Amino acid sequence: MLDRIFHALGDPSRRAMVERLVRGPASVTELARPFNMALPSVVQHLGVLEAAGIATSTKVGRVRTYQLAIDALTPAAEWVGRQRLPAEQRLDRLGTFLTTSSRRTSSTKKENSR
Amino acid sequence: MLDRIFHALGDPSRRAMVERLVRGPASVTELARPFNMALPSVVQHLGVLEAAGIATSTKVGRVRTYQLAIDALTPAAEWVGRQRLPAEQRLDRLGTFLTTSSRRTSSTKKENSR
Repeated sequence: MLDRIFHALGDPSRRAMVERLVRGPASVTELARPFNMALPSVVQHLGVLEAAGIATSTKVGRVRTYQLAIDALTPAAEWVGRQRLPAEQRLDRLGTFLTTSSRRTSSTKKENSR
Repeated sequence: MLDRIFHALGDPSRRAMVERLVRGPASVTELARPFNMALPSVVQHLGVLEAAGIATSTKVGRVRTYQLAIDALTPAAEWVGRQRLPAEQRLDRLGTFLTTSSRRTSSTKKENSR
């Protein structure tokens, strides 16, 4: 599932469609409007979002309306949220950075005081 | 940048490599170990992570070591975090769900009480 979600989000048009759907349900025509894109391409992108479980659609007459699936992006948000460097390692690297820059600063000072 | 990050995360092997790098830097050989994968494929996956700015590498002698870039996934986490349905819409849908299921429950009760 994460494969499909991340794959779906790897495209700027599909991300823009998600951003639109966050504001509320929309028909295919409404979703296509901001894009300079042939309708079949829009439909294809929406299909990718639907296959990933990010959007769902309902058809009434000839109008298909898409809406964002509730908590559709939660698995992706949770996975990304877990991949944070432990504080210890972050501090180590910050330590290295500060040591290096303080050395640079003190050598600059020495040069200046000559 | 989000394109590359999400594309990189759309592959289970690359996500597993990220999960490994969260625990600390690792050489290509160490990163390849858990995978039943030819070394060139591992190198290719690591190249995708590096191009997305998720990992960085340093080469000492013949050993190339990868480490997770600090805050590499922050843009992805922030984008995903923003795409939440407004509370209002969530409540609307929850309302619809509860109304539908309470109707179902009461009609079941009626049927049972007949």
